[in-house]
Amino acid sequence: MKPINVGLLGIGTVGGGTWTVLSRNAEEITRRAGRPIRITTVADRNVELARSVTGGAARVTADAFELVRDPEIDIVVELIGGYTVAKELVLAAIENGKHVVTANKALLAVHGTEIFAAAQAKGVMVAFEAAVAGGIPIIKALREGLSANRIQWIAGIINGTTNFILSEMRDKGLPFAEVLKQAQALGYAEADPTFDIEGVDAAHKATLMSAIAFGIPVQFDKAYVEGITKLEATDIKYAEQLGYRIKLLGIAKRRDHGVELRVHPTLIPAKRLIANVEGAMNAVLVQGDAVGATLYYGKGAGAEPTASAVIADLVDVTRLATADPENRVPHLAFQADQLADLTILPIEQIETAYYLRMRVEDKPGVLADITRILADNAISIDAMLQKEPGEGEAQTDIVVLTHRTVEAQANAALASIEALSTVVGTVKRIRLEELS
Amino acid sequence: MKPINVGLLGIGTVGGGTWTVLSRNAEEITRRAGRPIRITTVADRNVELARSVTGGAARVTADAFELVRDPEIDIVVELIGGYTVAKELVLAAIENGKHVVTANKALLAVHGTEIFAAAQAKGVMVAFEAAVAGGIPIIKALREGLSANRIQWIAGIINGTTNFILSEMRDKGLPFAEVLKQAQALGYAEADPTFDIEGVDAAHKATLMSAIAFGIPVQFDKAYVEGITKLEATDIKYAEQLGYRIKLLGIAKRRDHGVELRVHPTLIPAKRLIANVEGAMNAVLVQGDAVGATLYYGKGAGAEPTASAVIADLVDVTRLATADPENRVPHLAFQADQLADLTILPIEQIETAYYLRMRVEDKPGVLADITRILADNAISIDAMLQKEPGEGEAQTDIVVLTHRTVEAQANAALASIEALSTVVGTVKRIRLEELS
Repeated sequence: MKPINVGLLGIGTVGGGTWTVLSRNAEEITRRAGRPIRITTVADRNVELARSVTGGAARVTADAFELVRDPEIDIVVELIGGYTVAKELVLAAIENGKHVVTANKALLAVHGTEIFAAAQAKGVMVAFEAAVAGGIPIIKALREGLSANRIQWIAGIINGTTNFILSEMRDKGLPFAEVLKQAQALGYAEADPTFDIEGVDAAHKATLMSAIAFGIPVQFDKAYVEGITKLEATDIKYAEQLGYRIKLLGIAKRRDHGVELRVHPTLIPAKRLIANVEGAMNAVLVQGDAVGATLYYGKGAGAEPTASAVIADLVDVTRLATADPENRVPHLAFQADQLADLTILPIEQIETAYYLRMRVEDKPGVLADITRILADNAISIDAMLQKEPGEGEAQTDIVVLTHRTVEAQANAALASIEALSTVVGTVKRIRLEELS
Repeated sequence: MKPINVGLLGIGTVGGGTWTVLSRNAEEITRRAGRPIRITTVADRNVELARSVTGGAARVTADAFELVRDPEIDIVVELIGGYTVAKELVLAAIENGKHVVTANKALLAVHGTEIFAAAQAKGVMVAFEAAVAGGIPIIKALREGLSANRIQWIAGIINGTTNFILSEMRDKGLPFAEVLKQAQALGYAEADPTFDIEGVDAAHKATLMSAIAFGIPVQFDKAYVEGITKLEATDIKYAEQLGYRIKLLGIAKRRDHGVELRVHPTLIPAKRLIANVEGAMNAVLVQGDAVGATLYYGKGAGAEPTASAVIADLVDVTRLATADPENRVPHLAFQADQLADLTILPIEQIETAYYLRMRVEDKPGVLADITRILADNAISIDAMLQKEPGEGEAQTDIVVLTHRTVEAQANAALASIEALSTVVGTVKRIRLEELS
């Protein structure tokens, strides 16, 4: 059969990996796809780099807009990143009748509705397996593999940088700032790590998964986003003593009256498989009503793992390029006219358990006051850890694990606890999920 | 759009689950598939059961052959199991132009080549996600999600019964026979557990995965199959002391000159995620050249988890029912005319590491003799455990972990070791994989 012609926008890390894997495994990929898939044109501002990577085997241009209009190109792979030029290019590619494969989570989490609508109108596909959890085929699992299920919740370690930092903080008992510096030196964190450590990258990915799982539009602006910058080694240690690990989770949960969409550090039981996902690895736990819990684990970033997802999309799109659009898997798993109007709940309405650490005066009645306030707010206690004050110290730590409650209720209780004269400073609060 | 009509063969555990989930999630599944998927006819010898489950919402017949000829039916779901009638029915369904969805691993592992060829000739699909690892979408991951990769190896815990038994043996230090009885009482093992405990069921599944991973025909008859019936609690304990767990793994590995396809108890490092898959759960670890290692975990059996996979296939087949066959994913991942002629290697040619336990006289020079024999056979030692003899005993255990070697070489070394006058009885040998 006639080869499929791919235009590649951006030949950096992932673009280079895509070129390499597509070249190395060309024979095997053709045997699967039924026809050759070849990158015929590469657009990159760094034309020298593009020429050096492709070694003359593809046309190189600095003009990305020329590429997306090229009538010879069937599929455009967008690996530029960001919201601005990438958006214009993706929309221009669609407008020119090209299918699009992209790893750009930020773009789709923010502008997905517009982009998917444009693709739908033009009868082309926008595939984005590489946008979530790198090489793990989680989009495919959610969209196709679990299509029998009413998905109840998803909880994922979907940012390798923060998982690496948290693993190191736990292993070595070091503070956040120090481990971040090491991660930057090792290349696990970028020079400007804001998107990773503040949870924004994870929230982009959680937003995409929430849309596919529940059949709702992407709504990144309504996600609750909390990073790991304020996490202290002390809390990791106490969590460990109580049988928990702290992970930055992206959580999407179906509730009766809406959807929870949130990213924050989370205590999870150490015995869960996902709690043992270490270093820069990713894993996504999905709870479906029929299948129960399934877990997907692998490398969430890097040149070739991400290229693996990009190329899997290329093979899928190649197969269905000539098919009737109605035979294709819908962008967001549900038919475009069948998306639901489920509200994303504000953080005050979410329901979760909590880890609370309080610095208190070592005086009689303190614990009684705290437990009374929790009881008055209908919050029950699951476990507690009270430390002996250090030699000559007049203060000590009390750690409480609560049962599930509504966040607004927890806020009220914390305000009352902080108002106690025997409680020093603010209460440290970390959300806790049993994931069962 | 016009509903798709499904005929269900067999309404036992999985058939009942399929009916239940398809009914309960009908609205959500229709929103995904773009058209309703409904079971219009059920064939089961137990028509009373079929009537009671379906409550009049489907036609019930005792004549399965009538169902597969019914011109109103688009897709036949085969959940009868076994090689004989199921085979006739599947072939008859294909002959009548029906697509087929089946959970029958035994049938496909043994007769897959004939069945896929018949389907190919008729232009219909045979989907079998439910045949491997129940609700885990591993077939889809291997066939589509990882299509960019040259798959290097697969190692899976793909039989829940044996994993439950091994978990209990380890937890409680109990012998195999006793745990098997408990498993039967709890419903984790069947009255005749032979297929599970002898590794046959796992070998059926490993055979299917090997075909999809490497693009080779199914060749169950060439698989090496060893169950867990001879495993002793002692070895589980020693393995633990050396930092390993024992799991029944289905392994498919690409080698330069062929493919290894084998099922046997295997020592794996306790720190690997897959080593911590406990009870009746399943997990499959896949190593691809681009993506690295990915892991897929979930329930490998049960009514609704298996139904989840059956219905995912129904949605896939529904989408592509009217599509040009060349737009479909090939049955074995690679185009039917592109299957490779890779030999399945005989067990003597596989390469693996070993756990060896020897009962020896407590005399000087014993260890020297054993290590010399291993060295003479070019087998190097990775770790060793020598026990002090018990009070008043003249014999003790020596446990050796070797580096990788060819099985024939290991056999030769073991024969020489067993011929030593200081070695009592046979050497206990369990294969070991680092999975890295």
